[in-house]
Parts: sequence; C-alpha cells; structure tokens
Amino acid sequence: MTDIPSAIDAYLQSNLNDYIQTTMRLCAQPSVSATGEGVGACAQLLAGELRQHHFQVQLCPTAGQPVILAHAQGASDRTMLFYNHYDVQPPEPLELWTTPPYAPTLRDGNLYARGAADDKGEIVARLAALDAVRAARHGELPCSITFVIEGEEETSSPHLGQVLREHQAELAAQAGIWEAGGLDSEGQAVVTLGLRGVLGVELSVKVMDRDAHSGQGHLLPNAAWRLVWALNGLKGPDQRIRIPGFYDHAKPPTPRERDLLLALPPRDELYRRNLGVKTFVREGAGAELNVAVFEPAATINGLTAGYQGPGEKTVIPARASAKLDFRLVPDQDPADILAKLRAHLDAQGFADVEIEERGSTPPAKTSAEEPFVTMVARTAAEVYGRPSLLDPIAGGSGPMHMFFEALGPVPIVFTGIQYWNNRAHSPDEHFRLQDFASGARYIARIVENFASMV
Amino acid sequence: MTDIPSAIDAYLQSNLNDYIQTTMRLCAQPSVSATGEGVGACAQLLAGELRQHHFQVQLCPTAGQPVILAHAQGASDRTMLFYNHYDVQPPEPLELWTTPPYAPTLRDGNLYARGAADDKGEIVARLAALDAVRAARHGELPCSITFVIEGEEETSSPHLGQVLREHQAELAAQAGIWEAGGLDSEGQAVVTLGLRGVLGVELSVKVMDRDAHSGQGHLLPNAAWRLVWALNGLKGPDQRIRIPGFYDHAKPPTPRERDLLLALPPRDELYRRNLGVKTFVREGAGAELNVAVFEPAATINGLTAGYQGPGEKTVIPARASAKLDFRLVPDQDPADILAKLRAHLDAQGFADVEIEERGSTPPAKTSAEEPFVTMVARTAAEVYGRPSLLDPIAGGSGPMHMFFEALGPVPIVFTGIQYWNNRAHSPDEHFRLQDFASGARYIARIVENFASMV
Repeated sequence: MTDIPSAIDAYLQSNLNDYIQTTMRLCAQPSVSATGEGVGACAQLLAGELRQHHFQVQLCPTAGQPVILAHAQGASDRTMLFYNHYDVQPPEPLELWTTPPYAPTLRDGNLYARGAADDKGEIVARLAALDAVRAARHGELPCSITFVIEGEEETSSPHLGQVLREHQAELAAQAGIWEAGGLDSEGQAVVTLGLRGVLGVELSVKVMDRDAHSGQGHLLPNAAWRLVWALNGLKGPDQRIRIPGFYDHAKPPTPRERDLLLALPPRDELYRRNLGVKTFVREGAGAELNVAVFEPAATINGLTAGYQGPGEKTVIPARASAKLDFRLVPDQDPADILAKLRAHLDAQGFADVEIEERGSTPPAKTSAEEPFVTMVARTAAEVYGRPSLLDPIAGGSGPMHMFFEALGPVPIVFTGIQYWNNRAHSPDEHFRLQDFASGARYIARIVENFASMV
Repeated sequence: MTDIPSAIDAYLQSNLNDYIQTTMRLCAQPSVSATGEGVGACAQLLAGELRQHHFQVQLCPTAGQPVILAHAQGASDRTMLFYNHYDVQPPEPLELWTTPPYAPTLRDGNLYARGAADDKGEIVARLAALDAVRAARHGELPCSITFVIEGEEETSSPHLGQVLREHQAELAAQAGIWEAGGLDSEGQAVVTLGLRGVLGVELSVKVMDRDAHSGQGHLLPNAAWRLVWALNGLKGPDQRIRIPGFYDHAKPPTPRERDLLLALPPRDELYRRNLGVKTFVREGAGAELNVAVFEPAATINGLTAGYQGPGEKTVIPARASAKLDFRLVPDQDPADILAKLRAHLDAQGFADVEIEERGSTPPAKTSAEEPFVTMVARTAAEVYGRPSLLDPIAGGSGPMHMFFEALGPVPIVFTGIQYWNNRAHSPDEHFRLQDFASGARYIARIVENFASMV
C-alpha cells in the first residue's frame, strides 16, 4: 500500500481541472433555499454528477427541498458518511460582487461564485478525493461511502431530521465528515469536533392598535420602552444572562478541551484588524479568549420599532420586536431554555411580550479522545506537514445532533477546503485552488486510514 | 353694535359655500414640506387668495420655504396676529384614503383632503370670519390683523424664527390666535394656552465596521445590546427619567391650571376604545390623568438594529440607533437637557453612544389669568352655548416660543375648526362643515371683542 498516497496525489494533480469545471457547473446553477430559486434544478444536476461518479442516488422528497442520499459500496464492512448541502445563501447585495455570483470565475488562483466554498466546492473536492482513491485501487473503494446532501442547510434544516429517521438503517456508518473545514488564520489545518446549539426567538410586544402622537408620551404606553426593559432583563452590561437556571446544564470544557482551545491561534487581532472591533465582550486577550466558546451567548440579531426613516417622526410605537439567538453549549437544551425564558419574562412583569420560536438546535460534539479523531489529526501531517489542531466546538450551530440521533454516537469531524477569508455568505465568496487540492488529498487519506482502522 | 353678531352670522351663512370652495382649491395644491412637493406653488396660490381678501402680502424668502406675512389695517390701534401654515404632512399611505388626498371631496357633511384640517381649512375659516366682520362693519375691520403663515410647520419650523426676528417691528400685536383649535371629545369648545417643548435626538452606537456572525456572540461586541442598556439607563419601568437633574426646572401646574385640567374631559376611555390601550403609563383614571401633561416625558420614537426582515438571520449588529423625543414642561430648557443627557450617558459608561440633535423647541404658554383669555373663553358662549374650557398646555410642541421672543409676552390662544377625530396627519383627514361655520363665527366674535378691549 506504500504507493497509494502517491497514486492519489498523482490522480488529483492530473485531474484537478476537471473537478474545478464540475464545481463551476454546479455553482452556475442558483439554489437559494431562502427563496426556492433553482433548488430543485440543482438537486437534479447534483444527482446526475453523483451517478456519474458511481454512486447509487436517491432523491428523498420532503415538504421542502429533497435530500440526496448517495451510496457507494466499498471493500470493507466499514462506512464513512459525508454531510453536505447543495443550497446556498442569497447572493445579495449583488453590487458588491466583482463578478456575478452565478458566473463562476477563476481569478488569482481562486474560484469565485455563490456556493463555491459553502458548500458545492466541498462536495466536489470529496468526489475528487474518492475518485483518486478508486484510481489508486483499480476502481475499488476500501470502505463504503454515504453522502447525505440536503437542500435546506441555509434555512436551518427543517426537513433533514425526518429523512434521517426514515432512512436510519441505510445510513449506518462508523464515522462522519461534516460539511466543511480547513485552515485557520495561520494556515494550519484545524479539525473541528462540534457545534453549539441555538435557540432563535422573536420577542414582540404590542401595546396599542396603532402608533400614536408622542405628545401623549406621558400617558400612552410605548412598545419600544417595554421591549428595551424586557431585553435589559435578559442580559445586563456585565454580559451575564439573567434568566434563572440558564446556566444550570452548561458544562465547562474538559481540561483537554481547554488545552486544545488555548493551542488554537488567537482571533482578537484578526477581529481588530478586519472588523474594527475595539472592545470584546469579555476581558482577556489572545488564545484565552478562545475558551469563551464554552460560555453560552445571548445575541440580539435585530431590533424594530416605530419610525426608522430619515429625519424625525414624533410617534409612540404601538409595536416593537427583537430577534435574538441563544447559542447553547453542552448539555443545554433549547426547549428547557425556551421555557425558562418564558417564565422569566412572566416573572419580570413582561407577560405581554410574546415569544415566537424561530428554530432551535441542540449542541452536539465528538470527543477529542476518539481514536478516529486522533487518526484524522495525525493524517494531516502527510498533507500539511504537521498534525491538525483540534477545535472542540465551533461558535455556530447546525444539524449535527440529528446525525447522532440517527447513527448513534459515531465520531464526526469537520475538514475541507476552507481558509479564514473565503467570504462564505458574503459577496465574492471563493475558495483557493490550492486549498481544494490539498483538502481533497487530506480527505482521500482519511478515507484510506479509516478503512483500515480496527 | 347689537346687530353686528347677527350680521356676521348672516354673512357666514350666505357665503359658506364660497369659503369651502376656496379651501378645496388650496387643498388640491400639494404642499409637502418634508419632500418640497408643491410648497412654492401653494405659497403663490395662498398669497393670491390673501390679496383678494384685502391683505397686503409679503412672501419672505428663507433658506427653506417662504413665510407669508399678510397685513390688513383696522380702525383701532390694536392688532391681532394669526399664526398658520400652508404646508402639509405627506399623504402616505395612499391606499388608506377613501378618496385621493389632493382631490378634495365633500361627503357626509365633511370636507376630506390632505391639509383640510391641518391647516388650510383653518386659514380659510379665519378669512371667512374677517370678511364677515368687514361685511357687518361696511368694509372696515375694527382692529388690524396680521397673518404669519409659514411653509415648514410640519418640519419643525427651521426658518420661522429668523423671519420673525427680521420683521419684528411689523409684527407688533396685542394678542395672537394659534394655528388650530376646536372641540373636545364631548363637543365642548376648548381653548388651549400653551405647548410643551421638545428635544428630539437620535442615539447611535457603532461597535464594529460591519455585522458579524452570531456564532461569535460570546466574544464580539453587539451594538443592539449597548443601545438597550443605554436606553434602559435613561428611563426604567417606573417611568421615572433617570438623567440627573432632568426634573430640576420642571414647574408643576399652578392650582388654577390643575383645576382647569381636571375640568377637561377624561381621555382614558377614548384611548381604550379608539387605540386599544389597556394600560396607561401612570396609575389613576379619568380627568386626573389630564394633570400628567405637566410631567415631562421621554419617548422612543423608533429603534433600528441588525436584521429586521422575515425569518431569521444570525447576525451581530455592528450599528444600532434609536430616535427619541423628550417633551419638556415650563421651565425646562432643551439645551440644558441635551447637556445633561450627554453627561449621563458618559457617566454610565456610554461615551460611545453618539447623540445627534434632531430639532428642539422650548415650552411656551400663556397665563390662564390673562384678560384676553377670559374674554375668549366667555365669547364661546355666544356660539357654543357655554364658555370655552381652558387647557393650560397641550402635550405637543410648536414654535410658540418664537412669537414670545419676537412679540414679547402677549397672550396667544388656540381656537379653530377641529374636533377630536379629524385625522390630521392621517389618511381621510377632514373637517366637519358645521365646525368650519361655528369656528368662523367664534373667531369673528373674538376679533370684535378684542378690538374693544381696553
């Protein structure tokens, strides 16, 4: 087996351009789950690509967009699962794109398009890796591969769980690779092991049937003030969330997880330089700020009340609302937090503040002690010259818990073709061709090493 | 002089339709100061009407819209001043008008049009009253009359003060009638004597160069939270304004003013019925709530931050802002309150919250003890069957103080053709023809009685 890695690398080097062309075809097809634009057509296009790459493909219909299940049989009885998505974020604002979002363009060694990095390039890099493994093994995969590729990741995966439950038997696997991953701001490979949970809510309050003239502000109720006071009761300037019991089930990082976080590059200078941040939410600096990801967060995403146009309009707002998300850590439960939020608002005299749940996801993570994780980290050395760093949990959220529910506690890790500035969700989204190639080389080696694990 | 009131009434009865036609001509001409639409043309149209009604007219140019000064000489050396405005609020939302805003329409005994009640109908009712007085006196006015009619009342009168100062000598008068007034919710004539002041501000805070992903909410600063905390520091759920020194110069009502407020109809039931209000800002009920107008108020007019569209977008807002107005009572001073607001935000740790002043006006009022006020109240009995009630100060604001600065402390009162539901500033703005007629009869008698005051 000594020459298999060389054969993998040779195949990828020779055929890279074909896979970039495939990525460009997929990116030229819009697939905006928020609006529905092109999503069905993209599912068909991708299903065709998967079939050409020797996968048996099912398009599983849902009340929303279809979920693609694709399976390829391998030599061993082990199966690796890949989770990806074929939908993209809306491309707006269009005027900030250097080239149009659905006209994939190669420039300066990068491929620019909506969906290039998130997540179509990742899908194709994985196909490239698997084709390279087959090529090195005379057409045979050393283990089975299952892709789960949904079309609603950007709208909180409302129908994925149902498909995973219905196809549970077909999905059995011993490890999984999450949709994306890649290099940190210092160019080192990082393998992420989990996601925080999220509880999204909209708080709204209505105090009158319509806005009134502010000349009666001494007498008439004001929805904006009530919203301000209700929000102030949720979190004060000390950043501590004031909902009783909110922190009850929040587990701190293990000593190993803490060490892993401290070994990751600090982000504070990056945020200062790229976002113009002057003051962070908590004291401290450098890598010690990385540990704060294990503290749950309450974020106001938006505020709306009354008159917001130019100049002044002396109204008393009849309605006011705020969108918030709570990022939850293991072992917090979104339903428990929602109940505590309601009870707290009631207890504080804000029974009139309505809560609309906007989607929730529990936290989920893989233990850093898993042998699969150790193997994945070590394997990076063959591609990147040193083992991957491990990130115990990312700040964001996703449907990882659904896979644990369907597959049981298999290890799932994040790796892929990303780097810190690929502008996913933003204009000029792109990946670097060099990262596509090295990401594919890494995935191919992970598959090889996974197949031979005892 | 016994038959002069009868002659006035006879003239108005015979000629009412002509004045309604004049009002309709003026209302058919848009004059939206917020956008500038038609304002100059309306000034010309109105100047022509005033000349036809025997006034000497000056159009005083300003950096904004012209101020019309119109003068008619009378028999005595006394002068009454009328303050009015020819601009209107924007007519939007157009779809809520039963007939188009600039197609004045008579329906059910009312005249519907943008500007009908606020303030073009008032201007024409005054011209009708003065013509009636002339007709009853063989063409002579018993006192001189000066109109000051501006074109920027709906945008906080930014250029009126300058014109008043420049023309101070021509404006000498012994009493004034403010732009509008009329009947309360029980159909009784009410003469208002003053206006609260206002300080309008926009508070804004920026914590980053652009919105960030809320997965970093445990680390990155959030402009919406900072705004919430800054606002909460200005007023808490007890409705007490927390700015140190805010109430220092706020004078309570005199015992007479308190009695006058208690004699006005209660508004709470009206607000419950028409606005769906369930809870008022302060305890109490009925007429005792009227007294609260002497308590200054802080009103959030609008809140803006982050994502406000449908669904969810998990962002951390980089910027947030709030529009507020403070309604001020005698003897509060907007500049003093602005300085205290800045000092308070700084002291509370919110030096990063910027304040943009959005226009301010000091409070101003006429004493209820003025002989002119007593005369005006008594005169109502001749038209409405009982004396006017007196309202010491309205909740709103306006440029009344500018007239006190220019004219000295002459009594200024509010009376006109309004009733409680004329929907000024709203779709289907209108006045009732019966109120136009009785309002004109009342003004004519006030002019008569004023001319003969010693």
